[in-house]
Amino acid sequence: MTDPDRLWRRLMALAEIGAIPGGGVDRQALTEGEAEAWRRVIAWGREAGLDPQTDAAANLFLVLPGRDRAAPPVLLGSHLDTQPTGGRFDGAAGVLAALDAVTDLAASGRVPARDCVVVAWMNEEGSRFAPGMMGSEAYCGLRDLAAIRAVRDADGIGAGDALDRFLAGFPDLPRRPLAAPVGAYLELHIEQGPVLEAAGIPVGIVTGIQGKKTYSVCLSGAEGHAGTLAMAERRDAVAAFARCACALHREIGGLDPTIKFTIGRVQVRPNAPSVVAGEVRFSIDLRHPDNAVLDAAGARIAPLCRAEATPCAVAVTPLVDAPSNGFDPVLRERIGRAAAALGIPAMPLLSAAGHDARHLAGLAPSAMIFIPCRSGISHAPAEWAEPAHLAAGAAVLARVLDDLAFADALPLARGDAR
Amino acid sequence: MTDPDRLWRRLMALAEIGAIPGGGVDRQALTEGEAEAWRRVIAWGREAGLDPQTDAAANLFLVLPGRDRAAPPVLLGSHLDTQPTGGRFDGAAGVLAALDAVTDLAASGRVPARDCVVVAWMNEEGSRFAPGMMGSEAYCGLRDLAAIRAVRDADGIGAGDALDRFLAGFPDLPRRPLAAPVGAYLELHIEQGPVLEAAGIPVGIVTGIQGKKTYSVCLSGAEGHAGTLAMAERRDAVAAFARCACALHREIGGLDPTIKFTIGRVQVRPNAPSVVAGEVRFSIDLRHPDNAVLDAAGARIAPLCRAEATPCAVAVTPLVDAPSNGFDPVLRERIGRAAAALGIPAMPLLSAAGHDARHLAGLAPSAMIFIPCRSGISHAPAEWAEPAHLAAGAAVLARVLDDLAFADALPLARGDAR
Repeated sequence: MTDPDRLWRRLMALAEIGAIPGGGVDRQALTEGEAEAWRRVIAWGREAGLDPQTDAAANLFLVLPGRDRAAPPVLLGSHLDTQPTGGRFDGAAGVLAALDAVTDLAASGRVPARDCVVVAWMNEEGSRFAPGMMGSEAYCGLRDLAAIRAVRDADGIGAGDALDRFLAGFPDLPRRPLAAPVGAYLELHIEQGPVLEAAGIPVGIVTGIQGKKTYSVCLSGAEGHAGTLAMAERRDAVAAFARCACALHREIGGLDPTIKFTIGRVQVRPNAPSVVAGEVRFSIDLRHPDNAVLDAAGARIAPLCRAEATPCAVAVTPLVDAPSNGFDPVLRERIGRAAAALGIPAMPLLSAAGHDARHLAGLAPSAMIFIPCRSGISHAPAEWAEPAHLAAGAAVLARVLDDLAFADALPLARGDAR
Repeated sequence: MTDPDRLWRRLMALAEIGAIPGGGVDRQALTEGEAEAWRRVIAWGREAGLDPQTDAAANLFLVLPGRDRAAPPVLLGSHLDTQPTGGRFDGAAGVLAALDAVTDLAASGRVPARDCVVVAWMNEEGSRFAPGMMGSEAYCGLRDLAAIRAVRDADGIGAGDALDRFLAGFPDLPRRPLAAPVGAYLELHIEQGPVLEAAGIPVGIVTGIQGKKTYSVCLSGAEGHAGTLAMAERRDAVAAFARCACALHREIGGLDPTIKFTIGRVQVRPNAPSVVAGEVRFSIDLRHPDNAVLDAAGARIAPLCRAEATPCAVAVTPLVDAPSNGFDPVLRERIGRAAAALGIPAMPLLSAAGHDARHLAGLAPSAMIFIPCRSGISHAPAEWAEPAHLAAGAAVLARVLDDLAFADALPLARGDAR
C-alpha cells in the first residue's frame, strides 16, 4: 500500500525549497533551489534502496532494478522545477507520487520484471530557459542537446553552462544515455483546470494534450526622447505592441470558447520612463484541441502583427509547434481498471496544459493521471490539491505501475487481464 | 578665449566611461561609471585650480573662488549621468562647457567678484531612481532629502544607500550646504529636438521648459495557467495594458501636434511565457507647453485606464507635476547680446525636455543655451552634436559667465551695459 501521509509530508517539505509568500514556490530550472530539491528527493530514494542517476540533460532518475536489467524500463514521474510564482503541486506531486509508488514496490520485496524508474525531467516549465520540457525533449531525441545548451536565460546565462554547473554539484551520479528505450511512461499531475473539481471526481484519465504553438515576436522601432520627439515622427515599439496585442486578443483570443491565447512576457528596451521604446519582444502561447483551428489561428499571427505594427518592423519566430496528441489507449484502459478496482471514481478528460508525457508518447506507450486542483488555479501561489485527491491519484498510479512492473512483456496488449 | 579642441577631446574621453555599442553611453546615477566620470572631471578641475566639493545629495561642485566668498555664487553646469542607452552629449556637454568657461576665467588671472562654480547635478535622468532631477530638487529645497533617499531602483537598492556608498568614494570633498543662495544659474545643453538644426542656427536661447507630468500606473489582475484558464475567466494584466495603452495613445497622444505622450517603461509580473500576467506597472510621461492643455490631458488618464482595464483593477499614481516655466528675461537678453557680439546666429526656442534649470529657476535667475543635435535624436547612442556648434555654445556661455562673474551685483538689471 502507498503511504498517503508520507507523500503529503514530503510534498509540503519540498515546497519549503524556494518558498515564496502566499504558499507558492519559485524553484526554476537548474537553480540552487532545484539542486536542493534534488538532494532531498535523492535522499528519499536512497532510503528506499533506489539508485540515483542522471543524464547529460540533467534529468534525475531513481532506479529500482528489475530482474532483466536490459529490458526497457517503466518510467514514471514529472518535474521539480516551477514557474517564478508557481505552486506546491505542479510537477512535484507527480515526482513524489511516483517515488511513493516505487518505494512501495521496493518495500514489498518483490523484484519487478524490469527496472522501475522515478524520473524528474529538467526545465519542464520553460520560464527560465524557453521553451520548456527541455529534459524530456533531449531524452526523447526530439531536439539536439547542442541546440538546447545554446538557449540563454534572461540574464544571458546559457543552458549549457547552467547544466554543467548544476551537474558538477552531483559528481557521484552515474549518467544514463539519452534516448534509451522506454517500456512505458506514466505521469501524475494536477489538472490545472476546473473539470474534475466541477464534476466532483478525484481521478482524470487523460485522453491527450491540446495542441500548442508558441512564438517570440520582436517589434523594432527607434529610441527617442520622450519630451522632444514629435508624436508623428515616432516609431514607438510600446505603442506598436499595444496595437498588436489588442488586435491579437480580439481576433485570435476571441475566436471560440476553447482557444487559449496568452501574451505572458513583454520585454521593453530600454524600458526607461522618458525614452520612447526602440524595441519590444513578447511571447505568444496559443493552444487549441483541434489541430486545424490551431494551425489556422497560428497562421494569422504574423499578418495581424504586420498590419498593426507600422511604422515598426515585425519579426515573428515560431518556437514550439506541438499538435494535439492522444495517449496510449491500452494504458488509459488500465488506469480506468485500476481506479475501478480501488473504488475511485474516474473520468476521461483532455489536458489543456502541455506535459513531458507529450514527448514520451513518441518513444513509448504513455499515459497521464490527473487529480483535481482548486478552482483550476495553477502557476500561482494559490495552487492547491486536496490530500485525499492526491492519495487517490497516487494509489491508482501505484496499481498501474504494478501492472507494468510485472507484465511478461511491454507494451501491454489490449485487454490483458491483470 | 575658450578652447574648443580641449572641450571636444574631454567630451569624447568622458564618453568612454560607460561606453556602449553604437557610440552611446550607459552611465546611470550613482554607479561606478558616474564615480569614474567624477574622478575625471575633478582632476580636470584641479588642473585649473578649482576646488572640488559635494553636498548631501551627491551634486558635484568645482569652485573658482571670487573676491567676496560670502556673495551668492554663479552656478553653471548640467549632469554627468545618462539614460541606460544614452548618448555622449546629453548632460556631459553642459558640464564640460561650464568647466571650460570657468577654466578659462581662472587662467585669465582675473579674480571674479563672486565664486564661479561648475556643477554636475545628481540623477538628472531618472532612469535608475525615478523621477529624475533629484540632485537639483534637493539643492533647491523642492523635495526633502529623506524622501529622495527612500526611492528605490529596479533592483530594490535605495537611493540613500547608493548616495552613501557613492560619497564614501570621495571622502576628501568638503560638503556644501543644500539650499544655499545662488546668484545666477546657466546651463548649456543639446536641444534634443529638431528646431535649431532645421533653422541652421547654432545657438538657441531657451525661453522656457514645456510642462511635464509623469505617472506610474499599476494594473492588477490574476495570474493563471496559459494552457488551462478559459479566456472568459481571465483577468489578464497584459491584455488590460494593451487596451489602456491603445486608448491613451489614441485619446491623449493624438490630441494635438504639440503634445508628447510616452509609455516608456512596462514591467510585467511574473513575465513568464506560459503564465497569464497578474500585474503590469507602466510609466506615463506627458508634456505640453500649454499648462491648461497639460492639466486637461492629465486629468483624462485615470478615467481612460479605468474604462479599459476591466476586469483588472487600476491605480494611477502621479509622480512629477511640473508646469511650463519661463527663464529669466534679463539672462535671455544677455545670451542674445553675447551671441551677437561673437557673430554667432541665435534664436529663441522652447525646451521640450526637462532640465535641472527648471528647479534652479525657482532659486535664482536662470537661463539655458541650446546647441543643435542631429535629427533631434537624444537618449540614444546615435545622439550627435557638431564640434562647431558645441564651440559656439561654449563661447556664448563663457561670455555670459564673464558678465555674471564681474557684475557689481546680482541679479543683473535689465539693459545693463556690458
